[in-house]
Amino acid sequence: MRMVGIVMGSASDLPVVEKATATFDSLGVPYEVHVYSAHRTPVQAAQFALQARDRGFGAIIAVAGMAAHLAGAIAANTTLPVIGIPCRSSNLDGLDALLSTVQMPSGIPVATVAIDGGKNAALLAAQILAVEDSQLACKLDELRRAEAAKALESDCQVFEKYNK
Amino acid sequence: MRMVGIVMGSASDLPVVEKATATFDSLGVPYEVHVYSAHRTPVQAAQFALQARDRGFGAIIAVAGMAAHLAGAIAANTTLPVIGIPCRSSNLDGLDALLSTVQMPSGIPVATVAIDGGKNAALLAAQILAVEDSQLACKLDELRRAEAAKALESDCQVFEKYNK
Amino acid sequence: MRMVGIVMGSASDLPVVEKATATFDSLGVPYEVHVYSAHRTPVQAAQFALQARDRGFGAIIAVAGMAAHLAGAIAANTTLPVIGIPCRSSNLDGLDALLSTVQMPSGIPVATVAIDGGKNAALLAAQILAVEDSQLACKLDELRRAEAAKALESDCQVFEKYNK
Amino acid sequence: MRMVGIVMGSASDLPVVEKATATFDSLGVPYEVHVYSAHRTPVQAAQFALQARDRGFGAIIAVAGMAAHLAGAIAANTTLPVIGIPCRSSNLDGLDALLSTVQMPSGIPVATVAIDGGKNAALLAAQILAVEDSQLACKLDELRRAEAAKALESDCQVFEKYNK
Amino acid sequence: MRMVGIVMGSASDLPVVEKATATFDSLGVPYEVHVYSAHRTPVQAAQFALQARDRGFGAIIAVAGMAAHLAGAIAANTTLPVIGIPCRSSNLDGLDALLSTVQMPSGIPVATVAIDGGKNAALLAAQILAVEDSQLACKLDELRRAEAAKALESDCQVFEKYNK
Amino acid sequence: MRMVGIVMGSASDLPVVEKATATFDSLGVPYEVHVYSAHRTPVQAAQFALQARDRGFGAIIAVAGMAAHLAGAIAANTTLPVIGIPCRSSNLDGLDALLSTVQMPSGIPVATVAIDGGKNAALLAAQILAVEDSQLACKLDELRRAEAAKALESDCQVFEKYNK
Amino acid sequence: MRMVGIVMGSASDLPVVEKATATFDSLGVPYEVHVYSAHRTPVQAAQFALQARDRGFGAIIAVAGMAAHLAGAIAANTTLPVIGIPCRSSNLDGLDALLSTVQMPSGIPVATVAIDGGKNAALLAAQILAVEDSQLACKLDELRRAEAAKALESDCQVFEKYNK
Amino acid sequence: MRMVGIVMGSASDLPVVEKATATFDSLGVPYEVHVYSAHRTPVQAAQFALQARDRGFGAIIAVAGMAAHLAGAIAANTTLPVIGIPCRSSNLDGLDALLSTVQMPSGIPVATVAIDGGKNAALLAAQILAVEDSQLACKLDELRRAEAAKALESDCQVFEKYNK
Repeated sequence: MRMVGIVMGSASDLPVVEKATATFDSLGVPYEVHVYSAHRTPVQAAQFALQARDRGFGAIIAVAGMAAHLAGAIAANTTLPVIGIPCRSSNLDGLDALLSTVQMPSGIPVATVAIDGGKNAALLAAQILAVEDSQLACKLDELRRAEAAKALESDCQVFEKYNK
Repeated sequence: MRMVGIVMGSASDLPVVEKATATFDSLGVPYEVHVYSAHRTPVQAAQFALQARDRGFGAIIAVAGMAAHLAGAIAANTTLPVIGIPCRSSNLDGLDALLSTVQMPSGIPVATVAIDGGKNAALLAAQILAVEDSQLACKLDELRRAEAAKALESDCQVFEKYNK
Repeated sequence: MRMVGIVMGSASDLPVVEKATATFDSLGVPYEVHVYSAHRTPVQAAQFALQARDRGFGAIIAVAGMAAHLAGAIAANTTLPVIGIPCRSSNLDGLDALLSTVQMPSGIPVATVAIDGGKNAALLAAQILAVEDSQLACKLDELRRAEAAKALESDCQVFEKYNK
Repeated sequence: MRMVGIVMGSASDLPVVEKATATFDSLGVPYEVHVYSAHRTPVQAAQFALQARDRGFGAIIAVAGMAAHLAGAIAANTTLPVIGIPCRSSNLDGLDALLSTVQMPSGIPVATVAIDGGKNAALLAAQILAVEDSQLACKLDELRRAEAAKALESDCQVFEKYNK
Repeated sequence: MRMVGIVMGSASDLPVVEKATATFDSLGVPYEVHVYSAHRTPVQAAQFALQARDRGFGAIIAVAGMAAHLAGAIAANTTLPVIGIPCRSSNLDGLDALLSTVQMPSGIPVATVAIDGGKNAALLAAQILAVEDSQLACKLDELRRAEAAKALESDCQVFEKYNK
Repeated sequence: MRMVGIVMGSASDLPVVEKATATFDSLGVPYEVHVYSAHRTPVQAAQFALQARDRGFGAIIAVAGMAAHLAGAIAANTTLPVIGIPCRSSNLDGLDALLSTVQMPSGIPVATVAIDGGKNAALLAAQILAVEDSQLACKLDELRRAEAAKALESDCQVFEKYNK
Repeated sequence: MRMVGIVMGSASDLPVVEKATATFDSLGVPYEVHVYSAHRTPVQAAQFALQARDRGFGAIIAVAGMAAHLAGAIAANTTLPVIGIPCRSSNLDGLDALLSTVQMPSGIPVATVAIDGGKNAALLAAQILAVEDSQLACKLDELRRAEAAKALESDCQVFEKYNK
Repeated sequence: MRMVGIVMGSASDLPVVEKATATFDSLGVPYEVHVYSAHRTPVQAAQFALQARDRGFGAIIAVAGMAAHLAGAIAANTTLPVIGIPCRSSNLDGLDALLSTVQMPSGIPVATVAIDGGKNAALLAAQILAVEDSQLACKLDELRRAEAAKALESDCQVFEKYNK
């Protein structure tokens, strides 16, 4: 199976990354995690992106805050799907990172998920790999059913407590 | 090759959709276009999503404005990758559609592109199909090279005009 | 008397819901509480809405955060009045939920109240039921008078403390 | 049948109001239209609200822009359901009117619809009247079906044009 | 000397009010403090405003949060200068109160100060009273000089600490 | 009677200023108009403010756009009431000017009115002069009554047209 | 004298660039203009930045819209001062470009000017070159005096017209 | 070597200033720190700016929150490069200070860095001084390499921990 690359701008983004890796672990999706900065180590970030398809990656997740250029910098160097997670830093509630990630100019798309959305980024990457992998697609369907079941159970508990 | 589904909430979104179909035409990616509304025809929208994988789709693009629920409503009914294009309507400059599309809760990702970003949505869909399709990946690389060449040509023209 | 349905996207919205149920308890308005998600259990959410009028509901309150589609998903499946409470989640201060709830496209209205406005949602639902229920209308008038009396008492205390 | 009161802060809001009256005309809902300003004619606005229930109104729609206080000023003087339409004026894209209308403090709800949402306000008012009026409820269901049919027809046209 | 009226929408605004009263105490400006709500006790709020000039007030400060209508409701009932303090409540950082207070329609001005700006509201009221009261104007000038002196002293301390 | 100073940052703000001067003309309030920039002619701006009280001014209106510092720069040099009008320039809809004008730090208040609110700024200045000028207060009351009469007339016209 | 590099993301940014070049022409500051995109021609953009100091540049101006990464991409590859001009594109009024340009993470500063601020970017670049170039500093002082003179002349005209 | 002036509006901005001074200490850049307020001590602020070039300064950093006028007030009185740091105060997350600092009108540029961006402001000032100081330029390059090395080390640690 193709791997997913996870690149974060700084190790301080690890809590968001770990939501992604936990999801991959539960789905059996292989991944590789890196700290590459669009501004401090731009060459390494570009190189990783340039070699990603040949090295067996199927998608790349980029995690960054503030003027979050990392996803765009990765996307500029590969035609693999790049998923951007805007991170909330100390100010502006993550709006800066969201706009810096999603408002990409024509030609270089970044698939943006919610602010701090580590789990959804991983699910999206898995959904991309599952387009041609029916086994993984099944696992994703199961996960959906499990989440639905949990939601229904939650409904039962609430229903019992509030509707006597 | 797998098709891409394009679903718009209302026919008024056609100008954005046509940026996507033009891109698909140039890449030779097959697609199917529909008008389904998350609110006026929710059953049809759900049904389309539920059958999409079996009908041979590899990704779905959803286009909507204001409280843009369409991408989320599609994503809730398939584990195929769903790409959301938030559209600018008359007020709030598209910020309402952007937040309604990108801020999806954990479990159901939507790959969001820029406001009115029809071309990037199509490129992202093609990149997803190209993960396992090296021919399409080549076409995408060519397109990138062509855009880079155009940018360099533009640089030459500007350089000549302003630096005499 | 007709019941009010209260549907929340996730059990984490219970603190907001409890402000609504406390108000209903004090007014003697019957209600039924559910956890239905527009994305994880969309069929159950739709079904609840479709059957609501026949099951004796007079209004439905939908509570959700982030890209809050729940109120719209309920409203798409009933012509009962649907009241939306946008919830503040970890980022963006609830602005995402507010715009996702209030900016509904033409044809499917959602009666939106303030962010986290559990009490006002319940009062609005009661006011809707009270249009044809003069007894409930009286109770609402009494509540208003009681709140006014409390405000005037608060004025007395402040007046005494600050104007010596 | 109970009437709906429509109150606008200034005659310049008439284009939004006319979207509401057209909807009422098509549904056969009686209404009365006024220009009352929360700031220039506050006594008249309050009086209208105070007498509304006795005069046979079932809901009141308030239309205002900028620091839109009208819906709140009406709501403070009646326990009938009050629907607020925030209007876009020249600056800030209607965000000022939206927040001034929807962020009502606890105790006095305003059912807020989208910026400039004249049609949805009328539909919401009709849905409120239809809670105890099955004939009107039928008309609303028919309207929904008609809009769905129009959406499906639009889907057919688009499908034919783009999927050859 | 004319008094300043201070009206707050709810006793929870007292911390902001106390910044104003402390300023008035230091300047010897007489004031009267009330809790009047534009929505729960609108008649009392209006009455206070209507009688304010005759009762000897020279300016009124109105303090409110969320959809802050209080300053506007006061201003609608007097031609005395009305100063609005938008308060930050739990969500949206006070932006809702700011826009609800400052974006008043033509004809009824509200002199708006910063979010939670209790001290500046009091200074502005005093400056208004001081237009025709040279003694108070002197006190305000002294206060300015004292604040300037404090700023310069702070400069000395910082200069000594950082520039060795 | 004391004059009102009107200072604008650039002659491009004249349309907003003329709404103020028209209001002053109708009320018989004397004024003096200047173009002083907080950044291009800061000395003249400060000098005007420093001499304003002695030269017979009772209030100063400052009009500026973008990072609108003019009102604050005037206010820093006088204890006369300073009224700030934030102007909408080409971008950001006037939000930059609004926040730059209203969010003044403790100690130096600016009485801020709505974006482009030339008429309300003039009314506020007149209300300030009218605190000790009962003749002007009468004129302001008359103006209010005239505006109320116009609003009621507008109500009649609308009532006749829409309620047949 | 050192040159200033002007890099724009796309030729559509030329109107903003021309405000900068006109300013440089009037000051006699040499410059070189390029179209380099952070996403379509990232290698050329980086190369330009890497060689800029040795090629005799003293500052670089980067002009881009939407998720404006260009200034950051340049700044990551040089320790020359980099000035970012956020451009307004079709949506969001330039707020996306502003936040993407100014909110740079620690370590890689971008000197950001106002949205579409071509003239100020050029003045800032000239001010940087003028730190060690007293002749250029004189020209900048003259320009300031000329602008002040124009402002004072504008004041005279306005004063004559409005204060008769 | 030329000094850098650091001016803050109030001593409460010291935590941001200390990020700048620490950076200058590590680079050996001389600096002078002051507390000058655009509103409480405008004369001192202007004087400092007017004399800065002659006193041997090469750049000035201005630090302020809320309606942050300090950077503009300094820039109006010197043609040295002025760097503005918008500070987050209690409300609005620093957006008010950002817009008040960056949206300077044509003619008077302020080089704005990120909200609370003390370190980047110092780096930018050092980069400005380094245009003609190759020794300082070397130090800046070293610092970049050190930060890159730290980022790569961080990559190694993360790689080892997550990719077993």
